[in-house]
Amino acid sequence: MTLNPADAAFRSRLSADLPDEVFRPVEARYLEEPRGRYAGAQALLAQPRTTGEVATLIRHAGEAGVGVIPYGGGTGLVGGQIASEGTAPLILSLERMNKVRDVFPDENVLIAEAGVILADVQAAADAADRLFPLSLAAEGTARIGGNLATNAGGTGVLRYGNARDLCLGLEAVLPDGQIWNGLTRLRKNNTGYDLRHLLIGAEGTLGVITAAALKLFPKPARSGTALLVVDSPRAALDLLSLARAQLGEMVSAFELMHRQGFEFLTETGLDVRLPFDTAPEWCVLIDVGLSGDLNPEAALEALFVAANEAGIVPDGIVAQNETQAAAFWKVREMLPEANRRIGSVSSHDVSVPLSAIPEFIRKGGDAIAGIGEFRINCFGHVGDGNLHYNVFPTPGKSRADHENQRPAIKAAIHDLIHEMGGSISAEHGIGRLKVEDLEHYGDPAKLSAMRAIKAALDPKGIMNPGAVLRA
Amino acid sequence: MTLNPADAAFRSRLSADLPDEVFRPVEARYLEEPRGRYAGAQALLAQPRTTGEVATLIRHAGEAGVGVIPYGGGTGLVGGQIASEGTAPLILSLERMNKVRDVFPDENVLIAEAGVILADVQAAADAADRLFPLSLAAEGTARIGGNLATNAGGTGVLRYGNARDLCLGLEAVLPDGQIWNGLTRLRKNNTGYDLRHLLIGAEGTLGVITAAALKLFPKPARSGTALLVVDSPRAALDLLSLARAQLGEMVSAFELMHRQGFEFLTETGLDVRLPFDTAPEWCVLIDVGLSGDLNPEAALEALFVAANEAGIVPDGIVAQNETQAAAFWKVREMLPEANRRIGSVSSHDVSVPLSAIPEFIRKGGDAIAGIGEFRINCFGHVGDGNLHYNVFPTPGKSRADHENQRPAIKAAIHDLIHEMGGSISAEHGIGRLKVEDLEHYGDPAKLSAMRAIKAALDPKGIMNPGAVLRA
Repeated sequence: MTLNPADAAFRSRLSADLPDEVFRPVEARYLEEPRGRYAGAQALLAQPRTTGEVATLIRHAGEAGVGVIPYGGGTGLVGGQIASEGTAPLILSLERMNKVRDVFPDENVLIAEAGVILADVQAAADAADRLFPLSLAAEGTARIGGNLATNAGGTGVLRYGNARDLCLGLEAVLPDGQIWNGLTRLRKNNTGYDLRHLLIGAEGTLGVITAAALKLFPKPARSGTALLVVDSPRAALDLLSLARAQLGEMVSAFELMHRQGFEFLTETGLDVRLPFDTAPEWCVLIDVGLSGDLNPEAALEALFVAANEAGIVPDGIVAQNETQAAAFWKVREMLPEANRRIGSVSSHDVSVPLSAIPEFIRKGGDAIAGIGEFRINCFGHVGDGNLHYNVFPTPGKSRADHENQRPAIKAAIHDLIHEMGGSISAEHGIGRLKVEDLEHYGDPAKLSAMRAIKAALDPKGIMNPGAVLRA
Repeated sequence: MTLNPADAAFRSRLSADLPDEVFRPVEARYLEEPRGRYAGAQALLAQPRTTGEVATLIRHAGEAGVGVIPYGGGTGLVGGQIASEGTAPLILSLERMNKVRDVFPDENVLIAEAGVILADVQAAADAADRLFPLSLAAEGTARIGGNLATNAGGTGVLRYGNARDLCLGLEAVLPDGQIWNGLTRLRKNNTGYDLRHLLIGAEGTLGVITAAALKLFPKPARSGTALLVVDSPRAALDLLSLARAQLGEMVSAFELMHRQGFEFLTETGLDVRLPFDTAPEWCVLIDVGLSGDLNPEAALEALFVAANEAGIVPDGIVAQNETQAAAFWKVREMLPEANRRIGSVSSHDVSVPLSAIPEFIRKGGDAIAGIGEFRINCFGHVGDGNLHYNVFPTPGKSRADHENQRPAIKAAIHDLIHEMGGSISAEHGIGRLKVEDLEHYGDPAKLSAMRAIKAALDPKGIMNPGAVLRA
């Protein structure tokens, strides 16, 4: 599909229906993304204030055949927010649609516009004595519309699910400019195809989410955190089973970390450290949120004792207060920054069936060793089978020294993941970075259904062209 | 779209690729449904044994332009399983694809073919010391493929979600005969549009589900049940808030019942009764499933005391053992049978936002009283905002005496539901019964997107023609 540029002629057509203040100069931040792999060029920037204005913009873009890039917080890691090729698009930023429209504490529902920053959604829930459990590193910048469009994951998935599981209803503008009023607060509603789940995870290629009805949860009465040393990834899984047997769904987070990450923290001068004399090879950061009168420290101590007796956990510390818990989490949260400073040769956001994790880590290490000498920092949301498997140069070398090996590394990891029934994009999505990977590894029947749906809902191909599916 | 009959010529084309034992005579049960509103006529019945055979059947039906009716347990209440009009279809029963393919207790995953009876899924999970929480009246007959195709609800939704929330992956045959191998056990997988959620709830109109990867849960260590009297629906909601504040997500079921239902049990000679001397106007059946060392009787006693002190619950009984708990549940479970015996004039499976329930019940009663003299049995999954709002004749009258008032009753309730932001089909789906209602009350943008998706994936309109969308 050939698209037309968002040029002066297009701008003047928009002027007939929209006031000047909807348009802003395109600052550099709209043309960059966190990993610096994609850079946009010319574009027209619109910052609509209402759903009606979004609909007007989309309708004009459709009539003129101009591409539309929906823009949330810009924190995506796969280039879904940057059109780096082709004709100048309309960047449609939702940042001025940033109101929490309503909170219904008795219903455990919050209605937010797409441009509300994730941390502000969390704060609004907290103010109503409720929990909005979506939590991820970029929460101070990411906006809820983007979180939903990409079906964001994060550290709360084990207990509360992905972004899609936290959404009851959507308001969205479809590619033909129609507004879908699907902003229901209902827990049960079986009236036709689930457009909500189709738009969630479609990364803006089937329409623009303008608002969402989000699920809130009772706040756990008390929370607790522990850092438990495990001998191996297998032991981490055994610990997870034990934790669930003892604590059911009250296990809120279960994060695996490797010594390589702790060494990176030191190497890059980040002032966070583990509360162990010697950094363990593997450890697990576990959070529990308990109801009623349960005591989290006692529950975690009981888990620690049982795991120790079972030979799974040789060492560990249960946080005795919130400050200590925050210090443990700080280590986990700084790992991505340490990784950034070291500079990965290749990063992989992958998942495998839970029980296949030890085999994946072993075979992955062997495959990388066969390609060259590298350091591997493998960490992540092990309770969800989701690992961030990142490959780094050895000390003294840099990312640039290994440019020619990157394709082999990526292929080795993705082939292994595919063989093991895993996903080449567990939580970051496809964006523009993994379009070819999806074509290569994706199920052919699914891909042809996706293309048919895209063509049916967006026949001119204006919505986020080139993301998810080849334009 | 004009379809061709599944006639002798079609049957002989199928014979080229499929053995005779795939085909069986069409017994009466395939042409009937529980409420007796729809009756099928001529049809060809196939009972494929493998996904490959399903694909072959669908491919031939597509080539010949023959309609396909996917058939599970036949327990649907909206006629989705019966083609009562038009040319003879191919009935595609999944009943011989009834294997639990695999159970992964450590991953909390079970892989079942579409034809496994829901109770057998529950039993297989139980045998692995896990819980599959989908639970509904028809579980001894309904098959998991149909439960997923209709996004079944039931009594476990409050804690564990609808059928769609319990599914990690699907295997399905799409309308073009392609097999989609989406049977993933992954908790996180952001690789393109979510076909799974599109097929779930599509009632067989976009393809046939042949197998599913289902989520299991740790069994609650101990469960408890209480029957608490409330003065009003508003008090029931206050009790729900209190229960959640005290017990978080451990509240597993929260069912509202009305005196009318208890009177129907007596009137129809069903030998179940409430453990109260005088039947209360409203009461709530509450189930909790607790982790760790928590004592369910103590937790429910504490809830009862707190609710009594708050003036919400004047009376109640906490079950002291499983026999007593089962007796409480028996009352709830027999309500549909009592309703059937009385014979409703009009039944409504509706939902509203939780806080709107008292207003809906009040206004609904007023609206019905304005039409004539009726008895209303309003009961259901109040924790989900889902009520079964059924209107009955007064003693001495029958359903037949009110035939001419049914449209007015239905319109009054559905108009009210629509006004209040509710759903005209909370858990039973659209089937053939509510196609016009969906056209009338559905969001126009959503409907046009649904039609575009149907046309894109099933251009000949062979899949369950006339269900959900007009053929």
